[in-house]
Amino acid sequence: MKRTIALACAALGLGAGALAPGALAQDAAAPRAAPANPFLSPPLEPGPWDIQTEKESLAVSVFVRGLERPWAIAFLPEGGMLVTERMGRLRVIREGKLNPVAIAGLPPIMPSGIGGLLDLALHPDFANNRLIYLSYTKPSEENPDHNTLAVLRARWDGGLKLSEVQDIWVADAWYGQTPLPTRCCGQGPSFGSYGGRMEFGSDGKLYITSGDRNYGEMVQDTSNHFGVTVRLNDDGTVPADNPFVGQSGYKPEIWTTGHRNPSGLTRHPETGALWETEFGPRGGDELNLLMRGSNYGWMDVTQGHHYDNTPAKGIRDVEGMTDPILAWGPPSINPGGIAFVASDGFPGWSGNLLMAAMSRKLVRIEFDEAGNPVHQEEMLSEPGQRLRDVAQGPDGSLYVLTDEDDGAILRIEPGF
Amino acid sequence: MKRTIALACAALGLGAGALAPGALAQDAAAPRAAPANPFLSPPLEPGPWDIQTEKESLAVSVFVRGLERPWAIAFLPEGGMLVTERMGRLRVIREGKLNPVAIAGLPPIMPSGIGGLLDLALHPDFANNRLIYLSYTKPSEENPDHNTLAVLRARWDGGLKLSEVQDIWVADAWYGQTPLPTRCCGQGPSFGSYGGRMEFGSDGKLYITSGDRNYGEMVQDTSNHFGVTVRLNDDGTVPADNPFVGQSGYKPEIWTTGHRNPSGLTRHPETGALWETEFGPRGGDELNLLMRGSNYGWMDVTQGHHYDNTPAKGIRDVEGMTDPILAWGPPSINPGGIAFVASDGFPGWSGNLLMAAMSRKLVRIEFDEAGNPVHQEEMLSEPGQRLRDVAQGPDGSLYVLTDEDDGAILRIEPGF
Repeated sequence: MKRTIALACAALGLGAGALAPGALAQDAAAPRAAPANPFLSPPLEPGPWDIQTEKESLAVSVFVRGLERPWAIAFLPEGGMLVTERMGRLRVIREGKLNPVAIAGLPPIMPSGIGGLLDLALHPDFANNRLIYLSYTKPSEENPDHNTLAVLRARWDGGLKLSEVQDIWVADAWYGQTPLPTRCCGQGPSFGSYGGRMEFGSDGKLYITSGDRNYGEMVQDTSNHFGVTVRLNDDGTVPADNPFVGQSGYKPEIWTTGHRNPSGLTRHPETGALWETEFGPRGGDELNLLMRGSNYGWMDVTQGHHYDNTPAKGIRDVEGMTDPILAWGPPSINPGGIAFVASDGFPGWSGNLLMAAMSRKLVRIEFDEAGNPVHQEEMLSEPGQRLRDVAQGPDGSLYVLTDEDDGAILRIEPGF
Repeated sequence: MKRTIALACAALGLGAGALAPGALAQDAAAPRAAPANPFLSPPLEPGPWDIQTEKESLAVSVFVRGLERPWAIAFLPEGGMLVTERMGRLRVIREGKLNPVAIAGLPPIMPSGIGGLLDLALHPDFANNRLIYLSYTKPSEENPDHNTLAVLRARWDGGLKLSEVQDIWVADAWYGQTPLPTRCCGQGPSFGSYGGRMEFGSDGKLYITSGDRNYGEMVQDTSNHFGVTVRLNDDGTVPADNPFVGQSGYKPEIWTTGHRNPSGLTRHPETGALWETEFGPRGGDELNLLMRGSNYGWMDVTQGHHYDNTPAKGIRDVEGMTDPILAWGPPSINPGGIAFVASDGFPGWSGNLLMAAMSRKLVRIEFDEAGNPVHQEEMLSEPGQRLRDVAQGPDGSLYVLTDEDDGAILRIEPGF
């Protein structure tokens, strides 16, 4: 399948958010120098921020702070929420208050690079069975540099400890032991590009993204789990109706292939379709619509540039490869998590997709009635924070996680 | 028992270390403002530092960095070391390299204030039974503010996970649930003064310090574990020969009473005596020689000042109370861990006691042949870091832990 690609505006720079005047406002009582390193964000100011966007007025506030690289959030049926911190903690928030005690019972986790404790999903019947799923980077016992993506399932009764903790899937994507193999194209370190986003489909299956670990040569080889999405039963077994079950040379868990670092995944609330965001190399960040058995091209096909300027084998319209719905960059927009706006809280945004971006902004994408993206708006650069994820709570508010050492959850409510 | 007290020099200020010129040296490439808050230390420079002290030349280097509030260190018979991070991680260092993966299997831990994962002790027969002991602040299930000191025992096979994790002692010192009781003397918050240092005695018993939680009224009541040291068998049971076994109104675990925040504990390598350091209120920091069944006075007797200037009931020479070997302040010296120098590496310091101090220095204490302290020297203010603990490794080097968010282990070797 091929698509026409709507290229995004060209002015998307990593440092743009950091240069927002408000973000660099000096605290008169305790002056701080601007961060010399463009990869460092300014400290999060207390807010709130009243923000007028194209269609909605926003009241943005700091909901919770003191989280170390928050990565994912899940809303609990009894109220409150669970949050993962990438450095390896699972936290609970109740009545707006972060419990200082992390929930115990996690396995050994490798927190280097962009690995660590990643996504969090509640079982569709969580209210009754209290099963949660956590994706994380699992180290080998002998050498932590050698690690892979894994997903555990555990029971959580609401207290301070998990029980029945069990890996239900360990990606066949072990990598990192030195000496690393010779790789092309100026690819980065082995502790990048884990993917790790999870979503339960409307079919009750668990979908998981698995990154290429900056070892793109492995991705078009479908006998492993580098650069794929997988589809599992809720106990980790392989559904009999997976697209490649019984096919030689394919891992039966695979749902789609050809991904680099799939950093966002969400389900459309009406169509049930799974949408995915993905880090490209230099540029080539993507928004994809995941379709059964499709190949999204990496690392043969990308709209980005390899880090060492090796020409991409293909850019778009390549036979057998599915093009993205949208592509960004260079410069990269650095996509994080995504969520469709579904509630009445923001009527002007109904059906829009929001994307958290590590380039310190929230991106809103509008679609026409045929489902083609027709407009993008960037916002929320004021706090100057790298944004990892966005989710809509049962109260209609939007919650945005900042990808910072001194991380926070921002809350967006309708303004006046 | 009463003693003559050698008062320390008066010039010991909290901020002294922070004002050391070297510590505030600006990095020309990325200028940083001096910390406006005197409680904030400057970033740790890379070093090394060549330091000439009164009797020894020191070569000080950063051994490991990237530890969050390191609290305790234990040297492994197979080489390497275990380190606790107060925020709740247990780490292993092998061949000078910190494993990025924390050892899993810890229980829920309350890391607020100065609580968290605290001390670490190896069983005297660790080489064979691989038993380790960890002290930590244990939250109640319902309310993390309500917590106490606890000690767990676990088996550690050298891998990434503890097994057989079991609390062997939970202090009967639960405290923190609001509303807090009315307390005298301007005492601080409930999340301070946990104690938590541990040491195996030459009798094979485990000695543990338990702080007063800033609720000093509880300390002279010996029917609880506020402000005491305890003596336990290696499985947590009470030794039959403990001083208060069978006495009405006494917890049988108690070894000594009348402590405020006993933040250091070590065993003299020759005499086997246990020495303890202790945070006083404003001033009144103490070095104590722990003697079976003795009462060290808090909160009736202190050489410090209560925070609201309520007069102390007694200062020294009070019947039934044991005076400290040394007392400091005001201003406070803020003692951390202590260690006697035992090896040949520093011949001029043989038999001296080293004390890490949160006032950003290492203090060396000399004794005369009768065991009375006769001289003190302050050193290691150059890095400008709060110092939490000091220990001598099997290689003779001294290892000093910095009590910082971006914490480190400094190594002191003989200089030239």
